[in-house]
Amino acid sequence: MKTVSTFNGARELADGRVGLVPTMGYLHEGHLSLIETARSENDTVVVSVFVNPMQFGQQKDLETYPRDAGRDSALASDAGADIMFTPSVEHMYPFQHRTVVSVGTVAEGMEGAHRPGHFDGVATVVAKLFAGLQPDVAYFGRKDAQQLAVVRALVADLAFPVSVRGISTVREADGLALSSRNVKIDETNRATALSLSTSLMLVADAFEAGERKSRVLRDIVRQSLALSQQLAVDHVEVARSADARTVDAIDAEAFVAVAGTVGGVRLIDNVTLDPSTGTADRGTRLTRPSILYGGS
Amino acid sequence: MKTVSTFNGARELADGRVGLVPTMGYLHEGHLSLIETARSENDTVVVSVFVNPMQFGQQKDLETYPRDAGRDSALASDAGADIMFTPSVEHMYPFQHRTVVSVGTVAEGMEGAHRPGHFDGVATVVAKLFAGLQPDVAYFGRKDAQQLAVVRALVADLAFPVSVRGISTVREADGLALSSRNVKIDETNRATALSLSTSLMLVADAFEAGERKSRVLRDIVRQSLALSQQLAVDHVEVARSADARTVDAIDAEAFVAVAGTVGGVRLIDNVTLDPSTGTADRGTRLTRPSILYGGS
Repeated sequence: MKTVSTFNGARELADGRVGLVPTMGYLHEGHLSLIETARSENDTVVVSVFVNPMQFGQQKDLETYPRDAGRDSALASDAGADIMFTPSVEHMYPFQHRTVVSVGTVAEGMEGAHRPGHFDGVATVVAKLFAGLQPDVAYFGRKDAQQLAVVRALVADLAFPVSVRGISTVREADGLALSSRNVKIDETNRATALSLSTSLMLVADAFEAGERKSRVLRDIVRQSLALSQQLAVDHVEVARSADARTVDAIDAEAFVAVAGTVGGVRLIDNVTLDPSTGTADRGTRLTRPSILYGGS
Repeated sequence: MKTVSTFNGARELADGRVGLVPTMGYLHEGHLSLIETARSENDTVVVSVFVNPMQFGQQKDLETYPRDAGRDSALASDAGADIMFTPSVEHMYPFQHRTVVSVGTVAEGMEGAHRPGHFDGVATVVAKLFAGLQPDVAYFGRKDAQQLAVVRALVADLAFPVSVRGISTVREADGLALSSRNVKIDETNRATALSLSTSLMLVADAFEAGERKSRVLRDIVRQSLALSQQLAVDHVEVARSADARTVDAIDAEAFVAVAGTVGGVRLIDNVTLDPSTGTADRGTRLTRPSILYGGS
């Protein structure tokens, strides 16, 4: 694996069909799943690691975001990456935030409502990665379902010849969706945190049993979450995968998303529901502790 | 020359080094100069013809914008184009204006102040042409100096691997910068319209004689224009070519821009001044009537 820090350098090394896995580093098994899928589908796999200042609302979050270039490099290489693209902030934003890409309504509601400007930052940096690296395929986790919709909208609206692949969420053995934030959840809050994925598995059951009404699916989540008094629920929504627009019934691929805070840690999770097959994507589960906890 | 109306179709036909000339059609010698330059520098020359709804403020202007596909096709082909790209509005905006690309301060002031939202429309459609057609070089006229700066900012900020070439303004034999609007200027207003280019030639003289102070150059334009009582001057500005930021002195490539209205027709013009060579780009002049007036 080669590490480069400029767009020109990365383009020169990329050959044949190019798969891009954009990340903010501090890789876990969710990212590795994206890289492994990219490896199986492309000639060149590029993993970008860039903690994008533009998508952080608060300077403190940006400064304390975990970074470990050596660890990321070893993990990406083992998972099959050919190129690690690690641009500096100055290379990515030589003129700061002069150009902004906004995807309009797709970025409103849910996470967009909770984090104003966040998806402008995501859309702008992804547009830049697509423009500068010219990948054929790009891989994003389904855990960030609205982000995936933002990227799909960006690609459709700006005609990028990039195929966008949403990859199943990787969960810890107990069901908690993988996130670098999971290490901040202590023992006493773990059961509360698990209420998110538990409620979504009930939604998956109901959907696969034939339920298509959003109101009913939302109620299943809300009633399940009501059992966890330590959880502050932020939102429960049912939205189309294509554009994150909330829907009353599931007649095209959609996701049921939940967000909440437990012990000061904000968590999000979702299940993707596909009415064409009648199946829910519950994600995959690790069989041993995540590398987030110091394993390898 | 082949005519295609989809991004995929255009990309499939393009081979080797690709030069793109984005236009809104109704071609005149200014466009033909861009196409001829592109012809001399590339393997494949793509001319796009798309009247972009997003860059029009008023519906009436959009509806009355002149269109003649047959004429454009013949002219582009004669000038050396290989591919004419004529997407429909539905192909370009299947989801209307969901994604917007804004270049911030570069789009403010001058034409941006006169036409709110105009440069968002320009930046968005150009980003889409660059993303979807993946040209190596793109050609724009210097007559639209702020638009050229907007495109340069877009390319720098989104890392498009596109070389942007600004091409000298083509003027009618009497000096009036070519514009499809020129046909709306009647005999009685022609002399007034010429005051724009006349004033800019005086600026070019002063610059080449060593003048570098923006205030002095602006005053030359204002004093010259004051002789034309029929002209309503909108602005006279001195700005950097790179980002359209107004400057007090010319220490990098800059342009002196003037905008005004005569007989209900809004006209813009400028000269580009290069301190590294000490020369002004006054544009080139036709030696016979423009094809805008019905010649060929």
